[in-house]
Amino acid sequence: MKFSILRDRLIQSVQDVSKAISTRTTIPILTGIKIIADEDGITLTGSDSDISIESFIPKEEDGNEIVAIQQTGGIVLQAKFFTELVKKLPMDIVEIEVMNQFQTIIRSGKSEFSLIGLDAEEYPHLPQIVEDKVFKIPTDILKHLIRQTVFAVSSAETRPILTGVNWNIKDNQLNCTATDSHRLAQRTAEIESTNGTEYNIVIPGKSLNELNKILDDTSDLVEIVITDNQVLFKAKHLLFFSRLLEGNYPDTSRLIPTDVKTEIVVKTKEFLQAIDRASLLAREGQNANVVKLATLDSTPGLIEISSNTPEVGKVVDQVQCQSIEGEELKISFSAKYMMDALKALEGMEISIRFTGAMRPFVIRPINDETILQLILPVRTY
Amino acid sequence: MKFSILRDRLIQSVQDVSKAISTRTTIPILTGIKIIADEDGITLTGSDSDISIESFIPKEEDGNEIVAIQQTGGIVLQAKFFTELVKKLPMDIVEIEVMNQFQTIIRSGKSEFSLIGLDAEEYPHLPQIVEDKVFKIPTDILKHLIRQTVFAVSSAETRPILTGVNWNIKDNQLNCTATDSHRLAQRTAEIESTNGTEYNIVIPGKSLNELNKILDDTSDLVEIVITDNQVLFKAKHLLFFSRLLEGNYPDTSRLIPTDVKTEIVVKTKEFLQAIDRASLLAREGQNANVVKLATLDSTPGLIEISSNTPEVGKVVDQVQCQSIEGEELKISFSAKYMMDALKALEGMEISIRFTGAMRPFVIRPINDETILQLILPVRTY
Repeated sequence: MKFSILRDRLIQSVQDVSKAISTRTTIPILTGIKIIADEDGITLTGSDSDISIESFIPKEEDGNEIVAIQQTGGIVLQAKFFTELVKKLPMDIVEIEVMNQFQTIIRSGKSEFSLIGLDAEEYPHLPQIVEDKVFKIPTDILKHLIRQTVFAVSSAETRPILTGVNWNIKDNQLNCTATDSHRLAQRTAEIESTNGTEYNIVIPGKSLNELNKILDDTSDLVEIVITDNQVLFKAKHLLFFSRLLEGNYPDTSRLIPTDVKTEIVVKTKEFLQAIDRASLLAREGQNANVVKLATLDSTPGLIEISSNTPEVGKVVDQVQCQSIEGEELKISFSAKYMMDALKALEGMEISIRFTGAMRPFVIRPINDETILQLILPVRTY
Repeated sequence: MKFSILRDRLIQSVQDVSKAISTRTTIPILTGIKIIADEDGITLTGSDSDISIESFIPKEEDGNEIVAIQQTGGIVLQAKFFTELVKKLPMDIVEIEVMNQFQTIIRSGKSEFSLIGLDAEEYPHLPQIVEDKVFKIPTDILKHLIRQTVFAVSSAETRPILTGVNWNIKDNQLNCTATDSHRLAQRTAEIESTNGTEYNIVIPGKSLNELNKILDDTSDLVEIVITDNQVLFKAKHLLFFSRLLEGNYPDTSRLIPTDVKTEIVVKTKEFLQAIDRASLLAREGQNANVVKLATLDSTPGLIEISSNTPEVGKVVDQVQCQSIEGEELKISFSAKYMMDALKALEGMEISIRFTGAMRPFVIRPINDETILQLILPVRTY
């Protein structure tokens, strides 16, 4: 294998595929990046066996030469060293050549690195995916979908299925749900589907976080292919494979209350800032990070956000609401869960619907039924 | 105590004095910030007993009111909470009022924090400094002096005196020296002195690092007052006290070689980048982070920088020098020490003077005798 390549294109692809590589893998070759040069260009692959990322660099693009291939072939190079060194190369052009015994020379200007590589033939094969079950979604909407749900997955391995996001596809509609059993995030979106098949899969939260980092914020369509145990995201010159979580995702629809006893409408930013301030002194008793919300009888339209840390002090904040309807209310909840939920909402104003102090409550942007955040309260009043 | 103050001025002062505060102090009251309101304005103090910082906020400046004092007095508030909460206050004006039992109300807009404070009378007194031994230096030069020497202090407590920077003042000249016994950094500067007294003090490296962070990059003069065991830096509205290290600083002048066997002149940036690349694979045997430099007989004007990590690979870089004079040379040294030294030099070009492979070598910017960096080589050739 021998080729020359534009350094900046190589850096970009190396950084993309590195996102799949873990130093803690038990399969030594997976600490490396696989590099394949063929007639069409260069393909880089990184994998931790849960996630695999393949990045293709074409020989030319828009009439500009990116890669000059002198000899096809392949090699696997230690990701840790290769990633650092390509960033530090002195010139715009890099030459990579495999010598005897997988020794690989990386040349740029007057710098010459020699890395001991591994046989590309030994690298595990990526999953073979039959592309008959495909749907499409714009990249920017996919990124929003991920950002608005993935934070709510469970970080505990006690119920592994909850560490993933449930994707339910039906009637050209994608419904994403994440819950750690204390809160729930849900977002729906229209998709373009090639057939009417229904799917119900659970994608690991970690995979979605990495996918979100790697995708650019464009309106280009991403193709999504689903198999029994894998999902493949296809963007321009990029393939992102993730295994799926096995097991049945719990039915969360019955968790979402349909009746309302108190509804407040409030500006997201002001509400978030008040919660943020209250979180500073939210260490009451055993309840780390719990803040209280109360409607104020005396002053209509105001709610009070408060918290208390014995020995240190307390904070009381008042927030002007657009409207408060229904029963008076005193409720306690996790400041962190509330801030996570508010940051995921994009509306200027939100509606929060309560069904009493001991029941889960629902937060939505007003005039947008595609996003829902649900939080279980904490017993303190 | 009761006053109103512009939030942004309060935040700035709180952040400045916080730099002296350690959560690991054994004196509980020192985890707090002392706030004193008197007729002239507000004085904040933070201290870890080694470093003390006092920041003054005047009642008015340039005809604009900054503080309105309703009642003089004092309080000590937990730095951890107070620092976070002032940054999150909703409005531009903050009101601070001490109630019964040192309970302190911090009000801004519709937010009201209540913190349990401590008696300001219990706060340790700052060192009393007689201001007869004063000299002055522009702030930006002081910051350079610090930055160019302090990185070379020892981080090991085996010889505590080497954890500080030696300041030697004589004949209106300040000479700063830091060494960890493997490398040495030295910088001299002209100062304005009020008398002809000579000083020889050792200031803890940690103190100088904090001072550098807190000072703005202006040409305003900083007044420096030295006593037997303290040094005080006086900038506008800011007092920075540091204790001095006790003991005799070693005589380093005899370490600096005066003879030269090989001298190279090279562009700082290119040389630094080559060392940086070589450092990636600098794990040879026991010698972590060691790179080699060799003059090349075959190609005049070129030096070779190389390193090697068995099992992984090696790197060879060539750097074009402006000139190479004297004996041919092969030498090994710490890549980290070399990069630290090069980053502290400001010249476009440097001269490196070697006295053989086993002797310390000296790096200076060409045409600037005020800065010197010295590094001891490592035995590998």
